[in-house]
Amino acid sequence: MAKKRIYLDWNATAPLLDEARDALVDALSLLGNPSSVHSEGRAARAMVEKARRQVAALVGAEPSHVTFTSCATEAANHVLTPDFRMGRAPLSVARLYVSAIEHPAIREGGRFDRERVTEIPVEASGVVDLKSLETLLASHPQDAGPPLIAIMLVNNETGIIQPVSEASAIVHAHGGLLVVDAVQAAGRIAIDMATLGADFLILSAHKIGGPKGAGALVSRGETLMPVPLIRGGGQEKGHRAGTENVAAIVGFGAAAHWMAEGLDERNAAIGALRDRLEGGMRASAPDVVIHGEAEKRVVNTCFFTLPELKAETGQIAFDLEGLALSAGAACSSGKVGQSHVLTAMGRDAKTGGLRISLGFSTTEDEIERAIEIFMRIAARRKVSGRAA
Amino acid sequence: MAKKRIYLDWNATAPLLDEARDALVDALSLLGNPSSVHSEGRAARAMVEKARRQVAALVGAEPSHVTFTSCATEAANHVLTPDFRMGRAPLSVARLYVSAIEHPAIREGGRFDRERVTEIPVEASGVVDLKSLETLLASHPQDAGPPLIAIMLVNNETGIIQPVSEASAIVHAHGGLLVVDAVQAAGRIAIDMATLGADFLILSAHKIGGPKGAGALVSRGETLMPVPLIRGGGQEKGHRAGTENVAAIVGFGAAAHWMAEGLDERNAAIGALRDRLEGGMRASAPDVVIHGEAEKRVVNTCFFTLPELKAETGQIAFDLEGLALSAGAACSSGKVGQSHVLTAMGRDAKTGGLRISLGFSTTEDEIERAIEIFMRIAARRKVSGRAA
Repeated sequence: MAKKRIYLDWNATAPLLDEARDALVDALSLLGNPSSVHSEGRAARAMVEKARRQVAALVGAEPSHVTFTSCATEAANHVLTPDFRMGRAPLSVARLYVSAIEHPAIREGGRFDRERVTEIPVEASGVVDLKSLETLLASHPQDAGPPLIAIMLVNNETGIIQPVSEASAIVHAHGGLLVVDAVQAAGRIAIDMATLGADFLILSAHKIGGPKGAGALVSRGETLMPVPLIRGGGQEKGHRAGTENVAAIVGFGAAAHWMAEGLDERNAAIGALRDRLEGGMRASAPDVVIHGEAEKRVVNTCFFTLPELKAETGQIAFDLEGLALSAGAACSSGKVGQSHVLTAMGRDAKTGGLRISLGFSTTEDEIERAIEIFMRIAARRKVSGRAA
Repeated sequence: MAKKRIYLDWNATAPLLDEARDALVDALSLLGNPSSVHSEGRAARAMVEKARRQVAALVGAEPSHVTFTSCATEAANHVLTPDFRMGRAPLSVARLYVSAIEHPAIREGGRFDRERVTEIPVEASGVVDLKSLETLLASHPQDAGPPLIAIMLVNNETGIIQPVSEASAIVHAHGGLLVVDAVQAAGRIAIDMATLGADFLILSAHKIGGPKGAGALVSRGETLMPVPLIRGGGQEKGHRAGTENVAAIVGFGAAAHWMAEGLDERNAAIGALRDRLEGGMRASAPDVVIHGEAEKRVVNTCFFTLPELKAETGQIAFDLEGLALSAGAACSSGKVGQSHVLTAMGRDAKTGGLRISLGFSTTEDEIERAIEIFMRIAARRKVSGRAA
């Protein structure tokens, strides 16, 4: 019982990178408010601008197109709005289309009334249904304004990489705007805004080894921007009022810089561990269902259902055995609900799924111990029921 | 020139307290997402809840009435909305009344359309005009919903303490709701929500020696709350979605805890330094105008106009001499505008004002050097014009 706990919930939040921590702690000594014109203020400003370049580089964007926010959820609420501006002219978006597997921060629709949000269905595989997207946009009432579409790049539960470039072609053929939640993709797959065809990209620092407290909305240009969510100050070129969280932003930049290098090596190592894990799971419980296994997934995520083990119960069992994993997203304060992702895929959402997510510091020893824990928990599922 | 710089811009942002820094850095090691139910998540949650108790204690509130936000500006945008909920029932506020000297984060009116925001005038003294408040509320169209009133407790430029309890009596006599921006008051005067009669209080961590990246909206109860600004997750009891900035919140708590003790001793020391400063300024430039000097001010702030020295020019001159001060608020990224506070007071807003603000670590030596710098700058104002 004195064994070190195993943290395999990287998709909920990643441990802080040493590089990000050092940069953040250094930045705590900066005295000034980055909006102050004195020397102290300018020093803080310079650090924020350096971080902006680092975050932009991670996704192939212009630094001036990065708006820092306090988190990805704020960035989502910022960009998911019917009210945009094209330069100074107002531009109204008529309707929001969100895929059925989006994170709750997107699914809630931000500043749209619920009746103006349409769900884009998902195939049984867990991949966004592009034919449905096409059909939906074909009947979009263009007179009322263009459509806004939100499709995530990597699903937070299954890890499935979504066909965003293909979706982008469809969206733009219908004069729409595409918002891409890249929170779970950043640092895990190469991202280039232009290749993706995203008009807006959402990022979170704490999912890539940066600190909690920083996120970003990255835009394709500077002309078309959402009406600010938080106003009352000229910060972030007027797009986001409020004193910048300098230290968190600096830590975000350092993490982005670190993540921009060595992706392939990291993925090879993490992928081998995840494959070993899934092999071990299947060997000890052949009835385990690994969701999205046949699809293109990021290499760190394993979302599974163990028949006769409710996700809720399973999560506690793993925790007691010393392994931190997750039953779906960690977004709703302690609430273990049914997975809307499994529901969207037409799977047994009642039993639910458990998510194991690895990271760059996950070790072979941790994975071997995780397999042992899995074996024990799988073995003691309702034995009576299974013997029948 | 190798002398250490003098930081006297505490109202823009205060240096981080050692206690807050230590708490924050410790919290960076917390692995979990506070919404995760595993052991790591619960540890992070526990730290957030401790900070909530510490922040509540600073203002005499219930911990459960503290909603953490990313900054005070966000808290302002959260509470300044026509859309409230009384339990589950919607409650519409008809109009927002803001004093003419509010911080831009409040003056902009949050989620209210501009035509639904009315300004409450200010007396020449810099004190909110309560008779005008009474008159305005007497003609408020009650049928359309109650009025929402925002009056700050301490003005950020002059440091004048506003008659909030008296305002509260007027507001409540007219069935209104009172929002109090206590950002510049916290840690400088004793605050008790009930005594103030505030329905909502806004706080900022980085103005009290905590880190940038945390603020709070404190409410009088839990029944009447604004419709969330940032939604898409159950955090903060559904009032503010998004993963909590655990480290910043923990630092905020530590700073609040530190500030809750020893107020009188701190104020005696700071007040003596400010009085010495103002005495020295007046001795070297008898024509200096110290705004709000006859009013009840917080002891750390000195807002002055030096005739024939434009604030814009003066700020740069002081910076070059090694002293960081401010021309008005630092809220508008590098923009040195006319002071809306001086305009509201009917003073010469064209020359503008310069703000020196002290803090608990300000030293006698710094103040003596500040006086010398002031003397030099005052002496070299347009000498020709003055000799005439």
